[in-house]
Amino acid sequence: MKAEIIAVGTELLLGQILNTNAQYLAQECALLGIDVYFQTVVGDNPARIREALEQAGNRADLVIMTGGLGPTLDDLTKDVLADMTGRKLYLDEATMVKIQELFNSQGLHMVESNSRQANMIEGAEPIPNDTGLAIGLGLVHEETRYLLLPGPPKEMKPMFERYAKHWLSGIMTDELPLHSKMLKFAGIGESTLEHKLFDLIEKQTDPTIAPYAKEGEVTIRLATKAHSEEEAWRKMAEIEEEIRSRVGEHIYAQEDVPIEEVVLAALQSRNQTLTTAESCTGGLLSDLITSVPGRSSVFLGGVVSYSNELKHSMLNVPVETLEGEDAPGAVSPETAEAMVRGLLEKTDCDYAVSVTGVAGPTMSEGKPIGLVYVGVGCKNGDIHIRRLQLPGLRETIKLRAAKSALYELWKLVKSDG
Amino acid sequence: MKAEIIAVGTELLLGQILNTNAQYLAQECALLGIDVYFQTVVGDNPARIREALEQAGNRADLVIMTGGLGPTLDDLTKDVLADMTGRKLYLDEATMVKIQELFNSQGLHMVESNSRQANMIEGAEPIPNDTGLAIGLGLVHEETRYLLLPGPPKEMKPMFERYAKHWLSGIMTDELPLHSKMLKFAGIGESTLEHKLFDLIEKQTDPTIAPYAKEGEVTIRLATKAHSEEEAWRKMAEIEEEIRSRVGEHIYAQEDVPIEEVVLAALQSRNQTLTTAESCTGGLLSDLITSVPGRSSVFLGGVVSYSNELKHSMLNVPVETLEGEDAPGAVSPETAEAMVRGLLEKTDCDYAVSVTGVAGPTMSEGKPIGLVYVGVGCKNGDIHIRRLQLPGLRETIKLRAAKSALYELWKLVKSDG
Repeated sequence: MKAEIIAVGTELLLGQILNTNAQYLAQECALLGIDVYFQTVVGDNPARIREALEQAGNRADLVIMTGGLGPTLDDLTKDVLADMTGRKLYLDEATMVKIQELFNSQGLHMVESNSRQANMIEGAEPIPNDTGLAIGLGLVHEETRYLLLPGPPKEMKPMFERYAKHWLSGIMTDELPLHSKMLKFAGIGESTLEHKLFDLIEKQTDPTIAPYAKEGEVTIRLATKAHSEEEAWRKMAEIEEEIRSRVGEHIYAQEDVPIEEVVLAALQSRNQTLTTAESCTGGLLSDLITSVPGRSSVFLGGVVSYSNELKHSMLNVPVETLEGEDAPGAVSPETAEAMVRGLLEKTDCDYAVSVTGVAGPTMSEGKPIGLVYVGVGCKNGDIHIRRLQLPGLRETIKLRAAKSALYELWKLVKSDG
Repeated sequence: MKAEIIAVGTELLLGQILNTNAQYLAQECALLGIDVYFQTVVGDNPARIREALEQAGNRADLVIMTGGLGPTLDDLTKDVLADMTGRKLYLDEATMVKIQELFNSQGLHMVESNSRQANMIEGAEPIPNDTGLAIGLGLVHEETRYLLLPGPPKEMKPMFERYAKHWLSGIMTDELPLHSKMLKFAGIGESTLEHKLFDLIEKQTDPTIAPYAKEGEVTIRLATKAHSEEEAWRKMAEIEEEIRSRVGEHIYAQEDVPIEEVVLAALQSRNQTLTTAESCTGGLLSDLITSVPGRSSVFLGGVVSYSNELKHSMLNVPVETLEGEDAPGAVSPETAEAMVRGLLEKTDCDYAVSVTGVAGPTMSEGKPIGLVYVGVGCKNGDIHIRRLQLPGLRETIKLRAAKSALYELWKLVKSDG
């Protein structure tokens, strides 16, 4: 199946934002065995959107569009496609109710134009939006399939993963369905993982093995075409077994969830609580944790002990550990351990995790950029310290340090399970 | 001048790499006053490269292409353009010498295909490559200008900055250079800002007024074409004055810097320190602050007092403020104030900022999603509380709450200046 991806948005043409959607969709299409021949970006201009849409519609079997589904008069994608295919627009009831409820819950008046987000095209299949308001759609018109998704990646990606893939598999009936399985890794970098699986990746044919890294985590997707899920699982079992025998201890999930979600779910199921003490990650670790909704009973909070003053006053890290000629210093296993102990003493948490290190751009205490100590511990248990030397620039080191802390915590929680 | 950007490379169509070149070139074009109407990505396929090139050549005055200038047989951009315009290819001597010298210096034999990187099209102007081997070119053919640059950003960007801009200014002789000015806003949403400046934006012609929002901040870019910077400044002065008279209190910078950078720079210049207390932002505020390198003498750290337990134990927020039938609760001006007071009492900071609110996805304490209280205070000074009702979903509310806290802090710091 030949596909094209069209992103709509003047902000893309002005370079204000990066077209990460095109990359994501290109990767997903590659995994589904769909060949992408062109990607196009067009502004919020109806004539040019139509030009791009007609051209893609003539050349491709499948046209995936992102953007232009929002509430403003600039958001024109559905109008243009409806016009081009001679179909009517109507309001999707469930989406209207959701929009109205959101405004009500915030005590706000709903401006009329918001209803545009509930627009549906006659004969199209709705693609629900669980993380936003604008509904998407899949439409088969004459020989071409059109898939419309919103522009914000936080809405587009879950919609693709949860609903659009299913719609796509329905329209790809002439081909054997592709089955895939995800393995999510933590505590291991992409290059190390690829190195350890090099021979497997090199000689892959069926199933395919595709490793990729994003947001501080590494994923491997196994994929194969098969008549049934059972057949696919059987085909993938051997290679998965081999991967697990080499790097199994780093696999924390078999679906696309971040490690913080897995850790928090495990703690919540046991009614246990967590606190954090962060130095070099500067709040990023707790930000990741609080990005998971509905877990406020697990995460009590934490201390961003960026300075030695706060490490001491808020977490009882001894001054003689932090400062002085022979002191281990702020970036040391001793400090990472004292930070965990401080949390366990000063709060009523079950688990505590600490991070201290050098995020750069300059060395600190004469220690190299990327040196990070992670500490994890639990009530009445030992405290474990892990030393890491992380590659990358400041933001990457912060992210990898935070994810590594979550990995160490996950191992401890699992071992207590 | 109407332009299109074409990126050539199968690795882009497969999603293996992100098309950052398109964003960079789009931004540069916007700054030069060149209107980009389409961006296209096409694979390493001569027929489809030609299709994209012909189409862009017919629609646009300027076609900028990246990629496909390398040594392999997959690198076809120059061949296709030469063929399309009926021009011959020849080898650029200086580039050939450079390629040969590189191979000699590494004691390697130069494979014949490397000479492809020295290919030039008859009648084109060479665009030198100081950081790589493949030479670029600028060609005026019939009514269209073509600019060919290599794909690797480390080569493409310096080539654009050092040579291609100069070539562009040579072909844009009929146009005056564009001058622009940025105004960065905090503490005001994009829609409110647009509402307050609606008439100005509506009737804009010259200078142009372009508002846009990203990462929780709003920017307005004023731009005008003028013979000199002085003339441009004069043309923009009146409209800037009018904007300042309406929303001037929200302007925190005249260049593209985030507000946390401005606040931290102000505090560092006075040798003052800062701490944070976060509930609904969950660490995001301190993460933003610690994303600015080189300011660790300013930011002492903070408390992520996500639970009432930590609000009380770490920040001395009275239990009777937090819990009980008649208590104001965790999301209240009283709690925001007590959080600031706790920081000022428990640490030796000059400034303290707090955030408490409802990030969603569900209401909390019967209070609506998006309700946020920000507190700011300084040693020996009053504590100021701001109530906000922020729109959006969880992640957006967190980000806007954090940016609003930085805005309130900036106002306080400025007033103390």
